[in-house]
Amino acid sequence: MKNVISGFSKLTKEQKIEWLCTHYSNNPEETIALLNRYNNSDAEVQKIHDEFIENTLSNYYMPFAVAPNFLIDQEVYAIPMAIEESSVVAAAAKAAKFWLNRGGFKTEVIQTEKVGQIHLNYSGDPLILMDFFETHRKDLLNSTSEITKNMRARGGGILEMKLVDKTAQLKDYFQIHMCFETLDAMGANFINSCLEQVAKTFETLAEQSTQFEPHKPKVIMSILSNYVPNCLVKAEVSCPIEELTENDIDGQEFAENFLTALQIAHAEPYRAVTHNKGIMNGIDAVVIATGNDFRAVEAGVHAYAARKGAYQSLTHAKVEEGNFHFWIELPLALGTVGGLTKLHPLVRLALEILRNPSAKDLMKITAVAGLAQNFAAVKSLVTTGIQKGHMKMHLLNILNGFGATTEEKNKLVAHFKNETVSNAAVQKALEELRK
Amino acid sequence: MKNVISGFSKLTKEQKIEWLCTHYSNNPEETIALLNRYNNSDAEVQKIHDEFIENTLSNYYMPFAVAPNFLIDQEVYAIPMAIEESSVVAAAAKAAKFWLNRGGFKTEVIQTEKVGQIHLNYSGDPLILMDFFETHRKDLLNSTSEITKNMRARGGGILEMKLVDKTAQLKDYFQIHMCFETLDAMGANFINSCLEQVAKTFETLAEQSTQFEPHKPKVIMSILSNYVPNCLVKAEVSCPIEELTENDIDGQEFAENFLTALQIAHAEPYRAVTHNKGIMNGIDAVVIATGNDFRAVEAGVHAYAARKGAYQSLTHAKVEEGNFHFWIELPLALGTVGGLTKLHPLVRLALEILRNPSAKDLMKITAVAGLAQNFAAVKSLVTTGIQKGHMKMHLLNILNGFGATTEEKNKLVAHFKNETVSNAAVQKALEELRK
Repeated sequence: MKNVISGFSKLTKEQKIEWLCTHYSNNPEETIALLNRYNNSDAEVQKIHDEFIENTLSNYYMPFAVAPNFLIDQEVYAIPMAIEESSVVAAAAKAAKFWLNRGGFKTEVIQTEKVGQIHLNYSGDPLILMDFFETHRKDLLNSTSEITKNMRARGGGILEMKLVDKTAQLKDYFQIHMCFETLDAMGANFINSCLEQVAKTFETLAEQSTQFEPHKPKVIMSILSNYVPNCLVKAEVSCPIEELTENDIDGQEFAENFLTALQIAHAEPYRAVTHNKGIMNGIDAVVIATGNDFRAVEAGVHAYAARKGAYQSLTHAKVEEGNFHFWIELPLALGTVGGLTKLHPLVRLALEILRNPSAKDLMKITAVAGLAQNFAAVKSLVTTGIQKGHMKMHLLNILNGFGATTEEKNKLVAHFKNETVSNAAVQKALEELRK
Repeated sequence: MKNVISGFSKLTKEQKIEWLCTHYSNNPEETIALLNRYNNSDAEVQKIHDEFIENTLSNYYMPFAVAPNFLIDQEVYAIPMAIEESSVVAAAAKAAKFWLNRGGFKTEVIQTEKVGQIHLNYSGDPLILMDFFETHRKDLLNSTSEITKNMRARGGGILEMKLVDKTAQLKDYFQIHMCFETLDAMGANFINSCLEQVAKTFETLAEQSTQFEPHKPKVIMSILSNYVPNCLVKAEVSCPIEELTENDIDGQEFAENFLTALQIAHAEPYRAVTHNKGIMNGIDAVVIATGNDFRAVEAGVHAYAARKGAYQSLTHAKVEEGNFHFWIELPLALGTVGGLTKLHPLVRLALEILRNPSAKDLMKITAVAGLAQNFAAVKSLVTTGIQKGHMKMHLLNILNGFGATTEEKNKLVAHFKNETVSNAAVQKALEELRK
């Protein structure tokens, strides 16, 4: 078959690039040059990045930026963010500045429990399985002692292990549900290793046991869960309503509209999804910059937003005794050791900029980035509208798309200071300038 | 206050870096050198990336890789992926190879409708508002004619506009719910511009009208929704059960376990979240490589997974007449024009490798990447367990973490070919090798 290859993963990077460009590029030479232009000129630096994953051809650049002036629990932070979308960092910086003189952000880690499950198929008497499980509880746990040794020495490890009868949900379905404390590690590899060991011991013991005949329990799979509703952090801001007044914004009216916007994000899933998407703009930017896994965080957060049966906002607002309160509560399983944290030089730097936080500190900082992002977005939405600010930030991208020179860019940025930005308007203004 | 700065966004990139390093780094000189080392040596290339967002300091490298051998609707693709997690690309390539000789992937775009809403607060008689809305329906739509002109010329535009009474969900809450066809554009800016124009016209007309006294309707906010349950794509694989047989895997038993694993991912939210997280490993890698917004996709997909009131798997499996069927159905609002698609050179390349797909083609390819990822993950889970493959892929990262030389790495990769990889085991083996 055309364009098919065997043993691709075994080729050298250069061979992979050559094969790909020959078969999938319109101009192989130019494409090879392009991929090389994005490789680091220092071969040793590049090698580290090549080895993170398989079949690496080059580096995809994601802008690495910083949003300064975040006052969090009485300390000032500059938050590193890696993100491709314009206006996210600007919005974060703006929200940070706004709250800097209004008491800043206050945070609290509520819980840090991680979850993993061994999924079983068993068609026999539930009581026999429960009895077997309790009889061998210690054996199951002890079999992980080598794996958990270091973690236990630091104060973490397995917190809980229980057998759950899920046959009401699915025929013959039982599970061993386990909870973990993984301290500064995100813990995925640790948890999966523990689960697979417990599963192995369980299978061996069940094999040896005569209790089950003819219904042996069978391990279907063992894996951590990214749903971590008990790994929760809260971040909040508050100030007297009159302090919300700013330029042409009246504090009282702003607070009312802001609260209505939040109520809508609780009542209407179509709105809640985009409301939370905006929050994740801030969260993911920090998650990526600090070398964490944003798919894991996204999945856990959105499932949490839907936990009550309808998809809802992650942030909340109220006015009490003349004070405006705005807060977020969300699950964040993050790590500041393991994974890429030591390996990716920019991740190491991001953590240094954040003063080498513990996982708990990073949960707090990340939650703040999410809350700040949401504050800026809702503020825009209920005052000027989202497009005005967003398109202004996107202006340089539009100009680059039309191939504008530096001089043209400077002129048109000035021109659009008080004009509405749109693709069509920029095109027109550029054409007129060029006449 | 310490470490606080005014006018940061107005500084030059060099000034920003200097300020940040002086205040937030332990070794400013070294940090400045590090940030510069990750900047592209070609100043013009770097400038493009700097201008994507605000306060850019450098480039965060995300490995850019490719998974070859995807047979999709009778065409072979190599799928570009940008992702930091080891084993994702390897798993994709493995699944592609597996299905290459079993009929490949078949896909179908079910619908491509996007959504936006204008959220209203109105405490008057609903009938008056409805009458007003219907009377001015044409005026509202006509006011967008300049904005929608190009889109209409290409066959897209506004599909539907309706007033919805949401007062059962929230007091005084109404909305103008609009549907759009945005063709090859993701459409966020287009939709938001349309909404804000309709909202403006609505407010002006309502202001002029005497019908509402004393209850004027008020626009709270106008914004697109990333929840797009009618922008759906399906991808599927199937083959006779006996063709699933491979080495030490028996096709019949494999199909049974696979189906059980899928049933569990439908019955148990803790499992469903991680099941879908694995799918998103594949989806996001393509979304990022092609310059799309992964937060938008994540939010829409997870809300869709929770739409029935409980969070469930996005993939499905069945056995029918001796055939194994496995498919995914999910909402994907993607673009292949606009945004970063023309601006980011590696995005342009990713689209070229995919033969410059339409948005619909990209929906199909991306859904396939998600299905392939899930197939590989569930296959590992119900056979060898996830850790064996994952840790093997992660081995180089662990070795780099311990500062292993190229020679040591080669020796230990060979050593761990038939050994279980764990942090502790690698450390021990490396220590012994160094003796």
